[in-house]
Amino acid sequence: MQSNATDKLASRILGSSPSAIPADVVHEAKRALLNITGCALGGATHPAMDIAIAALGPYAGQPTCAVLGRRERFDPLFASMLNGISSHVHDYDDTTPKNYIHNSSPVASALFAYASVNLVSGSDFLHAFILGFEVVSRIGNATYPAHYDAGWHSTGSIGVFGAAIAVGKLLGLSKTQMIHTIGMAATQSAGLREMFGSMAKSLHPGRSAQSGYMAALLAQKGFTAGLQSLEGPRGFAAVQSAAYDLDKITDGFGEEFDLRVNTYKPFPCGIVIHPTIDACSQLHVAHGLDPAQVTLVKLRVAPLVKDLCNKQDITCGLEGKFSIYHAAAIGLARGKATLAEFTDDVASDPVLKRLREITEAVGDSRVSEDAVHVEVYLSDGRVLTKDLTGSIGNLARPLSDRQLERKLADQSTVIAPYAVDELIARCWEVDKLRDMSELIGLTVPMPL
Amino acid sequence: MQSNATDKLASRILGSSPSAIPADVVHEAKRALLNITGCALGGATHPAMDIAIAALGPYAGQPTCAVLGRRERFDPLFASMLNGISSHVHDYDDTTPKNYIHNSSPVASALFAYASVNLVSGSDFLHAFILGFEVVSRIGNATYPAHYDAGWHSTGSIGVFGAAIAVGKLLGLSKTQMIHTIGMAATQSAGLREMFGSMAKSLHPGRSAQSGYMAALLAQKGFTAGLQSLEGPRGFAAVQSAAYDLDKITDGFGEEFDLRVNTYKPFPCGIVIHPTIDACSQLHVAHGLDPAQVTLVKLRVAPLVKDLCNKQDITCGLEGKFSIYHAAAIGLARGKATLAEFTDDVASDPVLKRLREITEAVGDSRVSEDAVHVEVYLSDGRVLTKDLTGSIGNLARPLSDRQLERKLADQSTVIAPYAVDELIARCWEVDKLRDMSELIGLTVPMPL
Repeated sequence: MQSNATDKLASRILGSSPSAIPADVVHEAKRALLNITGCALGGATHPAMDIAIAALGPYAGQPTCAVLGRRERFDPLFASMLNGISSHVHDYDDTTPKNYIHNSSPVASALFAYASVNLVSGSDFLHAFILGFEVVSRIGNATYPAHYDAGWHSTGSIGVFGAAIAVGKLLGLSKTQMIHTIGMAATQSAGLREMFGSMAKSLHPGRSAQSGYMAALLAQKGFTAGLQSLEGPRGFAAVQSAAYDLDKITDGFGEEFDLRVNTYKPFPCGIVIHPTIDACSQLHVAHGLDPAQVTLVKLRVAPLVKDLCNKQDITCGLEGKFSIYHAAAIGLARGKATLAEFTDDVASDPVLKRLREITEAVGDSRVSEDAVHVEVYLSDGRVLTKDLTGSIGNLARPLSDRQLERKLADQSTVIAPYAVDELIARCWEVDKLRDMSELIGLTVPMPL
Repeated sequence: MQSNATDKLASRILGSSPSAIPADVVHEAKRALLNITGCALGGATHPAMDIAIAALGPYAGQPTCAVLGRRERFDPLFASMLNGISSHVHDYDDTTPKNYIHNSSPVASALFAYASVNLVSGSDFLHAFILGFEVVSRIGNATYPAHYDAGWHSTGSIGVFGAAIAVGKLLGLSKTQMIHTIGMAATQSAGLREMFGSMAKSLHPGRSAQSGYMAALLAQKGFTAGLQSLEGPRGFAAVQSAAYDLDKITDGFGEEFDLRVNTYKPFPCGIVIHPTIDACSQLHVAHGLDPAQVTLVKLRVAPLVKDLCNKQDITCGLEGKFSIYHAAAIGLARGKATLAEFTDDVASDPVLKRLREITEAVGDSRVSEDAVHVEVYLSDGRVLTKDLTGSIGNLARPLSDRQLERKLADQSTVIAPYAVDELIARCWEVDKLRDMSELIGLTVPMPL
C-alpha cells in the first residue's frame, strides 16, 4: 500500500492548468481527439447503438445533449454512455501499447456530453481530455500487467477514472470532492475481457464514461466515498490487481505524457491482430493472390494473441475483430481491413470461412506482440513467407496527420460532406474555440 | 472452469414458476420484503438520498416511477438506484450469514421500480424477488469467502446478478436474452469494501439495481454479451474470485433456499458488531450503568470484526456503523442501538467519544463472528464480564414477524400513520395483490 496515492492524484489534477501542457502534447491530444471523433461518427449507426437507444432511450432525461453522429438528443449521462459505445464498438480507436488501454473513448465520451450542455472552451476541454487520458494511462501503467492479465478490460475498469476526473476538473471540484470522485470511480470500476467479441465490450467505455460523469456530479453535491480508494487495503489496487506500483500514477505527472506514445489503429479490430492483417495484405498485393490458390496458412504469433484472438469459427462481425484467423483471411483474400471486413455478412462469406479453417496459429514466446511470421502454402507448390515486426499504426510507423484526417472522413458518412472538412479543421484548432459546441455541433447529422 | 454455469443458471430461471415455491419460503420472502420496505422508508430522507437527487435528478427521465418514501417521481432506472441507496444506507437490511450479502436491497430496489411502471401481480413480483434473492446468495456461496475476502462488497458486486435476472424474469426474456442479461450483469459487477463508512457503500446496491435493470432491458432489445460470463476464462468467477465452485449456483436450485437462513438486523449497522451491542446493552440494563463509572472496556472479537470495524476515532454516523468501539459505547451508555445512535451528531457526543477511547478490542480466532467477550472495568473496582454467542437477530434468535412489523413501523415516519398498518398488511398478502402498485403506492408520502 502506497500511503497517499489518492490524495496525491487529486492534488495533481487540481494543480494542473492548460498553459503548462507542452506543445507537442497538445498536438498529440488533437490527433487523439480527431481520431476518437471519427470513431464515434463511424460507430454511431452500429446496431449496438440502435439497440441501446431503443432499450434505454425511453428512460432518458430531457433531450438537451448531442450524441456524436446521431440526430436524437438525450440527457448528458445517457449521451455519454452512447458516445462510449459508438467510439469503441468498431475497435478502431486508439491504444497505448504500454498497457493496451483505449484511453480516449471513456474520457472524450464523457467530455463531449458535458460540453454539449455546459459552456466549455476548447482550451479547457482539451486540457481536461489530456488529464483524463493521462490518468487512465498512468493507473494502467501502475497496475499493468497484473490487472489486465487477470481478465479486466481496463478500457472500462480504468477508463472510469479518466472520465471522472476530467468531468470533475471542468466542474471545478475542491480537493475533497475530487477525492470522493476518484472513490466513486473506483467503486464503479468494472468490465470483463470475457465480453470481447460481443456488443458488451463497447458498453465498457460507455458505462465508464457515464459512471465517471456521475461520480463527479455526486461528489460536487456532497456524496461521500472512501478516502483511500486507490491505495487502501480494500481499494482498487489491492482488490483488482495482484501487483502494482502506485507511485507510477503521479511520478513525473505534468512532465511525462503517455499521449506521446499513443497509437491510432489503421484497422478496426483488436490491435494484436494488426501485424497479421498487415503481413497478409502485403502478400496479397505483392503476389496478386487468388484465395482459391491457398491450401494452408501457418501463423506464429505472440502467446497473448492466441489468448485473446483464438476464435476460428466466428458467427458475427464483432467476433471477427478478435480472430487471428479472420485477420489472415481478410488480408490474404482482400488485402485490406476496413469496416466492411467486419460486418455480420462478411463473417459468413464462404471464401473467408475456408481461409479461416485452413489457418493454423501457434503461440511462440519469441514472437513479440507487434510481430508475426506467416507461411502461405499454394496449390502450385509455392510457399510464400513473410516476417513482419511493427505493423502500420504502431509507434515506429505512426499514422500521419493526413492519414488520421482520411480515417475520420472515411467514417463520416452520417454527416454532410461539407461538414467533414470543417470538423477536421476545428479539431486542429480546438484550443482556439470559445465554445466546444462549435465542434460538437458539426458531428450531428442534418435533420431529415 | 465449470463448463456451462451461465447456461444452466439461465435455464433454471426460465424454468421456475411461482407455484413451485414452498410455502415456508414464500413466508420468509414476505418477511424479507416487509423488512426491506421498512429500510427503504427509513433511509428515504438520509442526506445521501437528498444529495443523489440534487446531483442526478436534473438528468432523470420522465417522472413516471415511485421512489419508496419520497414524493418525487423519476424514471425507473434512476428510481431503482435511489431505492437501493435508501434501503441500504442505514445498514439495517437483511444478511445471509453464509456469505454476508445483503441480498434484498439490490433485488427489491430494481423490482419496486419495474413494478411501479409496469403492471406486475404480487405473485409474480414475489417470485421474481425470490429468484433474484436466491441467485445472489448462490453466486455468493459459490465464490465465498475468496470474493468477499479480496475486498469486494458482494452486495454490490453480486447483487447486480439478482437485480438483472429478477427484472429479466418479469420481462419474459428468452434463454439467449437471459444469458446476455447475466453477461451484462457480470461485466458491470463492482463495489469495493474500501467504501465502508461512507455514502458510497449504499451506492453499491443502488448502482447494482440500476445496472441489473439496464442489463435486462438491453438484452431484451438484442444487445449481446459474452455467453460464458460466469465460468469463462475471463469471466466473473475467474477474474473476481481466487477460488470458487460454480456448481453451487444451480445445485439444489428450486429445492434449497437461502431465504430460509436469511437474518434481519435488529440494529442499523454492520452485522459483526451486533454481538457487542447486544452484550453491552445487556450489561447496561442489568447493572443500571452510569457511563461515567466506566474506566476501561476490553473486547475479544473475531479477527474479521477487527478487520472490518477497527475505526476508533469516528467523525460521522456512517463510520459509527463500522466501529466496534462505537458499538460498545452506545451499548454501555444507552443500552440500545436505533437510528438515533448513528447520526452525525452522536459521533461527536463526548460521553460516547470517551467510551470509545477507553475501549480496547483484540481479535481472537477462537471467538466466532457471532460472539464477543466483554470486560467492563468500573471506578469502584468492580469488573463486569459478559460472554455472548448468537446475538439477537441471528438464526438462533430470529426477529419475530411482530418484531419485523415494529421495525418497519419505527422507520415509517415519512408516511401517514394510518398507512403503516395497511402497508404491513399488504406485505403479508402480497401474493394476493393484482397489482403491486397497491403496495408501492402506500410507501409514497402524501403530497404536502
